[in-house]
Amino acid sequence: MLVLGIDPGIAITGYAFLASDAQGEPKLIEYGVIDLTAVKENSGRLLLLFDKLDELILKHKPNAAAIEKLFFQKNVKTAMAVSEGRGVVQYCLARHGLPVREFTPNEVKLAVTSSGSADKRQVQEMVRILLNLEQVPSPDDAADAIAIALCALGTFNYESLMQG
Amino acid sequence: MLVLGIDPGIAITGYAFLASDAQGEPKLIEYGVIDLTAVKENSGRLLLLFDKLDELILKHKPNAAAIEKLFFQKNVKTAMAVSEGRGVVQYCLARHGLPVREFTPNEVKLAVTSSGSADKRQVQEMVRILLNLEQVPSPDDAADAIAIALCALGTFNYESLMQG
Repeated sequence: MLVLGIDPGIAITGYAFLASDAQGEPKLIEYGVIDLTAVKENSGRLLLLFDKLDELILKHKPNAAAIEKLFFQKNVKTAMAVSEGRGVVQYCLARHGLPVREFTPNEVKLAVTSSGSADKRQVQEMVRILLNLEQVPSPDDAADAIAIALCALGTFNYESLMQG
Repeated sequence: MLVLGIDPGIAITGYAFLASDAQGEPKLIEYGVIDLTAVKENSGRLLLLFDKLDELILKHKPNAAAIEKLFFQKNVKTAMAVSEGRGVVQYCLARHGLPVREFTPNEVKLAVTSSGSADKRQVQEMVRILLNLEQVPSPDDAADAIAIALCALGTFNYESLMQG
């Protein structure tokens, strides 16, 4: 099982590819950010977002994906801008025929730290421990994408077990 | 000049292709809605939204496009869902290399009726008059897309005049 976790943002989108090894342990394959801060036009950003994600999916050929759900946003303008990027991300995943799950930030926290109220540092530290990393992964958006991928790996592994 | 106007919604997206004839008068080429209410999965909707729009663009080969801007939304959940579709629409327009303008509902009203506070029926009646139609176009989302295309036609015609 190889899953892709995505944390969409206005200009920076975190991603992480995570596999299960033969013992069922999660293994970090690649992670990073798609940084579009240098692109000023919205249409250019959405185009590049698709192309970069498309390239990563073709490279790693994941079986499934997960994306952070925008659960609540005080700033409607920010919520709308992030949602436009989310739409393109979902379209790209659908184009590749990937099954997709969505997780709220609280679901991610709960799955990774067993506490829905854990702070960002606790989540990142648990990610480091679960994946046997020497350091906490950075930047934050990439670390968040890893946490989302961990959720996805658990969910999809469980579902494929249940399906026999 | 042939422009495409788009009014994006959660399940129904209005579209209209509008041309300038030799006298500079607007002429309605095709209008309608992309209706995705029968598709329950969000990823399936975004995929079909792109494909239908892509097909229409390949058919009519417009020079430019315009899309309604979500100016303000009380319901954040609705705003986010519409924005995901808007993201895919913008991505599709960008993929075809179309210049795109965005207009708020008030800008559309002002351009079509000379009043930013005109109601929906006044806008639709002006659209009918401006395009010499026998009846007000329907459904509403398609009529809105025609009004947006009228804005776009004026703007792009003006800009190309200014550029000589």
